[in-house]
Amino acid sequence: MKIGVSFLARLIVGFLLIAAAAPTATADPLPSWREGPAKESIVGFVTAVTTPGKDYVRPQERIAVFDNDGTLWCEQPIYFQFAFALDRISALAPQHPEWKTERPFAAVLSGDTKALAASGEKGIAELLAITHAGMTVDQFADTVREWLKTARHPRFDRPYTDLVYQPMLEVLAYLRANDFKTFIVSGGGVEFMRGFAEETYGIPPEQVVGSSGKTEFRAGSTDGKPVIVKDPAVEFVDDGPGKPVGINHFIGRRPIFAFGNSDGDRQMLEWTAAGEGLRFAGIVHHTDTEREYAYDRDSPVGKLDKALDEAEQRGWTVVDMKRGWRTVFAFQEN
Amino acid sequence: MKIGVSFLARLIVGFLLIAAAAPTATADPLPSWREGPAKESIVGFVTAVTTPGKDYVRPQERIAVFDNDGTLWCEQPIYFQFAFALDRISALAPQHPEWKTERPFAAVLSGDTKALAASGEKGIAELLAITHAGMTVDQFADTVREWLKTARHPRFDRPYTDLVYQPMLEVLAYLRANDFKTFIVSGGGVEFMRGFAEETYGIPPEQVVGSSGKTEFRAGSTDGKPVIVKDPAVEFVDDGPGKPVGINHFIGRRPIFAFGNSDGDRQMLEWTAAGEGLRFAGIVHHTDTEREYAYDRDSPVGKLDKALDEAEQRGWTVVDMKRGWRTVFAFQEN
Repeated sequence: MKIGVSFLARLIVGFLLIAAAAPTATADPLPSWREGPAKESIVGFVTAVTTPGKDYVRPQERIAVFDNDGTLWCEQPIYFQFAFALDRISALAPQHPEWKTERPFAAVLSGDTKALAASGEKGIAELLAITHAGMTVDQFADTVREWLKTARHPRFDRPYTDLVYQPMLEVLAYLRANDFKTFIVSGGGVEFMRGFAEETYGIPPEQVVGSSGKTEFRAGSTDGKPVIVKDPAVEFVDDGPGKPVGINHFIGRRPIFAFGNSDGDRQMLEWTAAGEGLRFAGIVHHTDTEREYAYDRDSPVGKLDKALDEAEQRGWTVVDMKRGWRTVFAFQEN
Repeated sequence: MKIGVSFLARLIVGFLLIAAAAPTATADPLPSWREGPAKESIVGFVTAVTTPGKDYVRPQERIAVFDNDGTLWCEQPIYFQFAFALDRISALAPQHPEWKTERPFAAVLSGDTKALAASGEKGIAELLAITHAGMTVDQFADTVREWLKTARHPRFDRPYTDLVYQPMLEVLAYLRANDFKTFIVSGGGVEFMRGFAEETYGIPPEQVVGSSGKTEFRAGSTDGKPVIVKDPAVEFVDDGPGKPVGINHFIGRRPIFAFGNSDGDRQMLEWTAAGEGLRFAGIVHHTDTEREYAYDRDSPVGKLDKALDEAEQRGWTVVDMKRGWRTVFAFQEN
């Protein structure tokens, strides 16, 4: 019987040890990141703020913000939301025969990118207004979801949601496993991003901050149910100085961790880095023509110039995509 | 030794039983609610949406929204945020000798409520602008916290944060224990509410939706650090039809549970109730002059008229405070 007790005791102790060990298993949380300064700075930061000591941060203060275009997913050759708008113009064209001769629609329908560029900001605003307003928020969400299912990226011939950076998905998961709350803070349209953020990034709609148009509540429409309708007027531009303003307005506390990739993220990174205590400010630098794209100071999309200089001055973490990432997209071979 | 094994086994079994029983302990989750239709409808709803079956709702869709003034805390004799504004005028008066003769400040400083009322909406807007703008968001947050520590409610002679409804704190805790995410959606100022929502209600800043003034990001002020400054211009009024608009903008999905107390909550309740599947729409009806206040259709503060009629028509839950609540404030004897 002595063996019996001892066996039972060992069973219990063994069980308890397994249970205790499980949450602290030391598998690499960032397998798609090559060893190097960027990976070290992320892991070092997370370890410091979650370990009792001078840099410790309470879980509720662990707010992490991410730009979307060029930081979490690809933004070339054009912003994916703009690709959505162009596809919508084509889809809606049969109902608008007048578009065949009207600017900027004619340029879109004939694929004349020069004429489209010539239509300038006013033309772009018109395209966005017609494709992003005049429907209920529920209808718009359905349209976005439908488009994401069918549309393909011109170079990679994949759904756009496959063009998310595997290393950044790992950072999101790593932060959440360490009790961070992860937010998107992007110049993209908030309702467009909410169409895929939860499924793609594990970021729920209420943690997506973005640009927005005005909306209007209408009580009792035709079927007696109230609706919220999207208006063409711009309400908020969540870019540049708008990012810290959006963070303050939506989140209400200063992040301790921020990741961006362009000059539009500068003020968000400054605002984050200027807080008390240890902070993380990171920039994804697109340096990989083979697996993705290479662009920075002169790019019309995702221009990274002043923020790159500032990152050097202030010691922010700059990720060299080509050297730092073992994998870019999950579908590519390593 | 046989006793030894059996004792150990019983110990383990006992321990496992206790561990298994803990999460389903059937203590009353709403002890301050008297048995009756209101309590039944809350418990019935939560049970239905968390139990596998036709009314089940996935945890991430369990969004609950609460008005603040008159729903989570008292709003009489004046909105507490307005009491804050008046106290700030007194505190700032020494730096503004001209206020002694200027409207509406003179009325505040002399306690002339008639003259104050006569200054109308323009006067009120002026008071709010001077007390809620022209400082950084961090300075404003400090001022709110300082005021909450020292100010006293005129009737109850208690800190304003003691004037929260104990039964509603229980509803918040009950919902969160059932994997709901609880939000405030209030006409009150978002930055004012964030000064106490986490400590008082367990609702973090990022789950507070409210009215707001414009803010401005300023890079590198005197000490080289960026700041966000509060401007006097109104940005968003989170009241009436603004509530579903704010919910859509900030939360991005439709709540399944909403609680309000006045006509300003009507559209939020309509928007919530009009969703697919089982929904909860509740109204706190102030009927208790002794322990709190009694007011509805003719009250200048928290007017409840059309929403009360609509509640009856639509079968929303109306809480009769006097009959339904065993305790109103935690500091009162039962």
